[in-house]
Amino acid sequence: MTKRSITLNCDMGESFGLWKMGNDEEVMPWIDMANLACGFHASDPDIMSQTIKLAIEYDTQIGAHPSYPDLQGFGRRKIDMEMKSITNIIIYQVGALKALAESQNTQVNYVKPHGALYNSMMRELSIFDAVADAVACFDIPLMMLAVTDNEKYLEIADKYELPVLFEAFADRAYLSSGELAPRSMPGSVLCTESEILDQVKQIAHYGKVRTIDGFLIPIEADTICVHGDNHHAIQRIQRIKDAL
Amino acid sequence: MTKRSITLNCDMGESFGLWKMGNDEEVMPWIDMANLACGFHASDPDIMSQTIKLAIEYDTQIGAHPSYPDLQGFGRRKIDMEMKSITNIIIYQVGALKALAESQNTQVNYVKPHGALYNSMMRELSIFDAVADAVACFDIPLMMLAVTDNEKYLEIADKYELPVLFEAFADRAYLSSGELAPRSMPGSVLCTESEILDQVKQIAHYGKVRTIDGFLIPIEADTICVHGDNHHAIQRIQRIKDAL
Amino acid sequence: MTKRSITLNCDMGESFGLWKMGNDEEVMPWIDMANLACGFHASDPDIMSQTIKLAIEYDTQIGAHPSYPDLQGFGRRKIDMEMKSITNIIIYQVGALKALAESQNTQVNYVKPHGALYNSMMRELSIFDAVADAVACFDIPLMMLAVTDNEKYLEIADKYELPVLFEAFADRAYLSSGELAPRSMPGSVLCTESEILDQVKQIAHYGKVRTIDGFLIPIEADTICVHGDNHHAIQRIQRIKDAL
Amino acid sequence: MTKRSITLNCDMGESFGLWKMGNDEEVMPWIDMANLACGFHASDPDIMSQTIKLAIEYDTQIGAHPSYPDLQGFGRRKIDMEMKSITNIIIYQVGALKALAESQNTQVNYVKPHGALYNSMMRELSIFDAVADAVACFDIPLMMLAVTDNEKYLEIADKYELPVLFEAFADRAYLSSGELAPRSMPGSVLCTESEILDQVKQIAHYGKVRTIDGFLIPIEADTICVHGDNHHAIQRIQRIKDAL
Repeated sequence: MTKRSITLNCDMGESFGLWKMGNDEEVMPWIDMANLACGFHASDPDIMSQTIKLAIEYDTQIGAHPSYPDLQGFGRRKIDMEMKSITNIIIYQVGALKALAESQNTQVNYVKPHGALYNSMMRELSIFDAVADAVACFDIPLMMLAVTDNEKYLEIADKYELPVLFEAFADRAYLSSGELAPRSMPGSVLCTESEILDQVKQIAHYGKVRTIDGFLIPIEADTICVHGDNHHAIQRIQRIKDAL
Repeated sequence: MTKRSITLNCDMGESFGLWKMGNDEEVMPWIDMANLACGFHASDPDIMSQTIKLAIEYDTQIGAHPSYPDLQGFGRRKIDMEMKSITNIIIYQVGALKALAESQNTQVNYVKPHGALYNSMMRELSIFDAVADAVACFDIPLMMLAVTDNEKYLEIADKYELPVLFEAFADRAYLSSGELAPRSMPGSVLCTESEILDQVKQIAHYGKVRTIDGFLIPIEADTICVHGDNHHAIQRIQRIKDAL
Repeated sequence: MTKRSITLNCDMGESFGLWKMGNDEEVMPWIDMANLACGFHASDPDIMSQTIKLAIEYDTQIGAHPSYPDLQGFGRRKIDMEMKSITNIIIYQVGALKALAESQNTQVNYVKPHGALYNSMMRELSIFDAVADAVACFDIPLMMLAVTDNEKYLEIADKYELPVLFEAFADRAYLSSGELAPRSMPGSVLCTESEILDQVKQIAHYGKVRTIDGFLIPIEADTICVHGDNHHAIQRIQRIKDAL
Repeated sequence: MTKRSITLNCDMGESFGLWKMGNDEEVMPWIDMANLACGFHASDPDIMSQTIKLAIEYDTQIGAHPSYPDLQGFGRRKIDMEMKSITNIIIYQVGALKALAESQNTQVNYVKPHGALYNSMMRELSIFDAVADAVACFDIPLMMLAVTDNEKYLEIADKYELPVLFEAFADRAYLSSGELAPRSMPGSVLCTESEILDQVKQIAHYGKVRTIDGFLIPIEADTICVHGDNHHAIQRIQRIKDAL
């Protein structure tokens, strides 16, 4: 059996104006795919341009990370937008990033919606449809959560001839349903490094994940989402990278 | 001598959210080039999408109309931005419009900066350079004011291999220097229809314009900017169109 | 039996920057209470200042009309904000309007939340509580929808020693539950002038409203909300004013 | 001769949404006056509320720190606004902060314009007039730069019966004209702690400052502006505090 080749993706370019967030310079060397904010929940045209430059330097793939329009809430608050408007804000944001990438002779390789938009796309198929409609304009894949029951999503993606990338989480516990355990549940976030490394290896090497109540369920992931919020987190990314 | 073929351009898509501005449906059939706001001084992704659709319907060329970030001031207030930031906000805005246009299988054909950005680009060569740098990424022309002394601009445009389109104004009086008479000067805005039609014909047929103090000076214009603010203005556009 | 004295209130000051909305100059003479947008869904410090001036001219009471932060969506899209944040954005907006009013030697007399914030406050008691908490800081009443079952709201208002004003709608049909008929229901918006005048008179003179299915239910309203969107609407406001 | 009692003021509450800036918790105990951002260049209603709470805890005076509307540029970019608009945005911002302060039973004690607005107020008397007009509505002082030739400012302040507070800078070199040496000039920013402490003592105890070219000029300062950007800066504030 062939070992799955699995990549690491990380949210990047989340500073805004004078405000700094994250440690992009330290994280970029260790990841394969950088999800770049597009100005609606974080970033601005200057930050986008700088982060593209950094991604080029380390040969990291660039993805667009579009969001609901909500700087103050960092895109974590759902906004009741019409479906057509969701499609339009995604095309707008991805287009803006794509032009900045092309001005540096590189490309946007995929789209991963951010925060509340990501969550609502997974929860409401009409929103997933609006997102798929937007991303399909760019002939690049949509990155979405790897879930056990993904047929309903794939049906919509197929309608738009949209390729998808499935992502799993290194540090989040799963329910037997294949969904992420909600953050309010005890044990929903893995804390020790050995737990995290075990989960990553099991996903990457065997296509399985152990759920919060002890079962082994299948998970088909193309990429694993990591976080680089602090120095500790960056060391962990390096260990995950080594383990793959 | 061949009569110059000259086009009409007009600022369009300047509504925002629920707020309406202009009479796009009535104006679109009569113009050749629609300068579409990109969300920084007016418009939003939904309005941009609708205006692109309208332009397609009447086979009107689409131009990007990027601006300083200033919705409340409608892009009419100069903001002291760094040159690199000016380049980046233009790439961002044009890229966003381009993606929305391509999602409807059409193209952005040129870029005309808006309001204070247009004025400052004509007044400060460093800003003109920052604008040219941005527009050159898209391989489409920059629309700028037709002035007598345009060599200094063309030198910068050449540096970026950037084609330019020169525009003249149907209803603005000119100084003998070739500049527009400032709005504060009596007679700076032509009011009667016959004055306006005379000016348009002279620019289009003879490449000349009569200045506010009575001289005839050369003006090399590819396109004439018209306004469609009210019903009266729309009738005037039709007469100008007929006169060309 | 004493005839109830009932006022007319209307959303005002909903322009933004160069974009105009409504007919404030024509409506202001006919209404008693002007609900002024505070910059989050519409208006800006200049428009707020001008609308305060107009209200003073016609001796119209000024109310603050705070909203979710959403200019593009005109405050009509619910945003999932934390309760404490809702309290803070309301204090912020009312405080801003209050200072502009006091700079013209007048006062803000009440607060009426706008759009999605108004609807969500009526639907979720935790949001009503967050709104009440904010308005109570100003020692002025909160304007809310007159509903049959208002005890749960009054209990919260009492906790904050917050006076309330109940409003009814001139042109909306009611369900027997006392709620407004949803806009999607046929007949939910009254169209003929006689229907509207009948409803207004019944509310004002008898404290009752005829529901969409023909029942007469009690409604305790201090004020009636009218709309001044066009010339026709303004004439209707005048007739309503005369009928009271 | 009585030793002048001089206070320390510092820009505070400059975080925005999830983005942190400054070390408010560490700085607040050491300063006398906290200049709180009001949401136009930094901060938001939640941050404002938290920073007010922190100021109350340490019994620090609260000042409003209004700005041009420019989050991305942190209020450091001049915007060509009309004078009336400048007045209105200041009233709006101070009013918002004042309401949030009053909701916690405290007060706004003074107004200090931020960044580009501060600089342009000192450079253009018409802007100073617009600022004075706004601040006078609140019956609290305006904090401005202590300059040798302050008569022209005081004349305007007197017109509005506006008290003023003069501030000096601990770490900036002065020209013999009494103006700050521009940042582009070598030596314009004092680097060593002994230089800074010497300057502070001379201002506080003798009302004099040594200019960049070696002269002693009079400076009448009520307060000294300090910065708390990092741990080193905070230690310096403590030394300055001790020296006074």
